[in-house]
Amino acid sequence: MTDLRSTLATSGPIDLASRPSDDTPAFEGKKKDAQLQLPQIGEQLMQTQELLFANGRAGTTDRKVLILLQGMDTSGKGGTLRHVAGLVDPQGLKITAFKAPTEEERAQDFLWRIERQLPEPGMIGVFDRSHYEDVLIGRVRELAPADEIERRYDAINDFEKRFVDDGGVLLKCFLHISANDQKERLAERLDDPTKYWKYNPGDLDERALWPRYQEAYEVVLERCSTEHAPWHVVPAGRKWYRNWAIATMLGETLAELGLDWPAADFDVEAEKKRLATM
Amino acid sequence: MTDLRSTLATSGPIDLASRPSDDTPAFEGKKKDAQLQLPQIGEQLMQTQELLFANGRAGTTDRKVLILLQGMDTSGKGGTLRHVAGLVDPQGLKITAFKAPTEEERAQDFLWRIERQLPEPGMIGVFDRSHYEDVLIGRVRELAPADEIERRYDAINDFEKRFVDDGGVLLKCFLHISANDQKERLAERLDDPTKYWKYNPGDLDERALWPRYQEAYEVVLERCSTEHAPWHVVPAGRKWYRNWAIATMLGETLAELGLDWPAADFDVEAEKKRLATM
Repeated sequence: MTDLRSTLATSGPIDLASRPSDDTPAFEGKKKDAQLQLPQIGEQLMQTQELLFANGRAGTTDRKVLILLQGMDTSGKGGTLRHVAGLVDPQGLKITAFKAPTEEERAQDFLWRIERQLPEPGMIGVFDRSHYEDVLIGRVRELAPADEIERRYDAINDFEKRFVDDGGVLLKCFLHISANDQKERLAERLDDPTKYWKYNPGDLDERALWPRYQEAYEVVLERCSTEHAPWHVVPAGRKWYRNWAIATMLGETLAELGLDWPAADFDVEAEKKRLATM
Repeated sequence: MTDLRSTLATSGPIDLASRPSDDTPAFEGKKKDAQLQLPQIGEQLMQTQELLFANGRAGTTDRKVLILLQGMDTSGKGGTLRHVAGLVDPQGLKITAFKAPTEEERAQDFLWRIERQLPEPGMIGVFDRSHYEDVLIGRVRELAPADEIERRYDAINDFEKRFVDDGGVLLKCFLHISANDQKERLAERLDDPTKYWKYNPGDLDERALWPRYQEAYEVVLERCSTEHAPWHVVPAGRKWYRNWAIATMLGETLAELGLDWPAADFDVEAEKKRLATM
C-alpha cells in the first residue's frame, strides 16, 4: 500500500484551480466505507499515540507531531479537529487556534507566538491556522511590506527545519475546496439558525478576494513544501474523504516513529517485592 | 430519573473506608451495558457541548464547565481523560495536568497557577489534580505550616465560589478506590512492560501513607463540599462504572446550562443576497 502522504504531497508549481476538490485520491470505496473505517483508524491512532505519549512521559524521546491545518473559510478545519483530533487521547493532544495576532504578538517577530505553542516531546499538536497566515492574509491584505512578506517564506522553512531537527514531525495539510464549495457551505450556514454562530459577514469580504488567496496559497505550496516538511493538498470538497485522509496520514506519521515502550528506569523485581509487603 | 450528581454528592463527615469502591450507584445493568451506553452519552455530550462552545464563540455566554479529578495513584484520572474527555469535541476542551509546583509557582499563592488555567466561556476544562493537592499532599507531607493548610480550605471555597459566580460550573469528582484496588493496579503495572512508564517508585512511598491520605481526603470532602461546588464520591474500583458515572454527570451538567443557539448578530437576508452575487 502506498503511503497516502506521498500521494497527497505537493512539490513545485501548483495550479489549484485545476485540482478538483471532490477528488478522493487513493481511497477505494464509498462514503460509508470511509466512515466505517474511521473508528478502526482511531483504534490504531490511540495505540501508536500512547507509545509516543508514554515515551514523552518517561523522558525517552524528543519526538512530537504537529498537524498544521490551513484552508479557506468553511474548508473544514473545525470539522477535522472534531472528527480526526477527536480520535486520539486528549491527554496527548494540544490544539492551538491562531486568531488575528494581539498587539503584544504584533510587537514580536511573526514566529514568536507560534514557537510558544509547539508541542512538547510525546505530544501531538494541532494548529488551526498557523504562521502561514502571515504570508496568506498578510500578503493578500498587505499587512506587511512586500520585502518582509518575501523574507518570511525562508524564515518559515528555517523555523520548520529546526522543529524537525529537534525531533518534530510536521504534517501540513491544505484543505482544498472550490469557490463553489465555499458558496454552498456559507449558504448552509445562513439557512440554518444552528449554524449562524459559524458565520461572520467578514467571511464574504475574504471571499471577494478568492483569486488572490488562491494565488497566495500557490506561492506557499510551492515555496514552503520542503523535503523536511512537505505540504499535502487534501481535497476537502467531500468531508468524509478529508477526515479519512488526514486520519490516515496521521496514522502513517505515528507508525513511522517506530517507538517502543520505554524500559523501566527502576528495579522491577525489587519494586514487586516492596509492593507485596504493603 | 434521579440526577446522578445528587446521588454521588457528599455532605458532612464521611468515612471512606466504609464505602465500597466497587459499588455502582444508580446504574442498572452490567459492564457491557455501561460500555454500550458510553458512545450514546458521547453523542449527547457532543450536542450540548456544541451549544456551549457556540455561545462561547459568539460571546453570548459566560458559562463554562470545569471537571476536577482527584484520587490516589491508579484511581483512573488518566483513564477518565481518555474515555470521558475523549468523548467531546477537543476544540472545546482544555485539559490541565497539575504536577508538583515549579519554583515560580511556589513563590505565589497556591491558587495563582490554578486561576490561570480556568476555562474560558464556552469551554470545558478538566483538571487532572488541582488546588486540592495543596491540602492533600500539602497536609500529609507537611509542605506548609499547619495554620496555612488550615487557611486554604476556606480560600478554596471562596475561590470556587467566585468561579461559580462568574458563570462557571464545577464538577468535582473524587475517584474512590480501596488500598487493595491500588495494590492490584500497581502490580499490573509492574507485570506489564507496556505499563512500566506509568509506574514510579515514589508511588509506593505515597502508598505507605495511605491512611493519612484517606484522612486528608475526608477533611477535604467534608470542608469543601459546598452548595455551590459539591464533591462527588465516584466509586472507581470498576473502571466502566467510573467512566459511565463521570460521563453521565457531565451530560447532566451540560444539559442543565439550558443554552440555546446564539442569534445572528448580522442581517441574515442581506447576507444571503450578498452571497448570491458572489
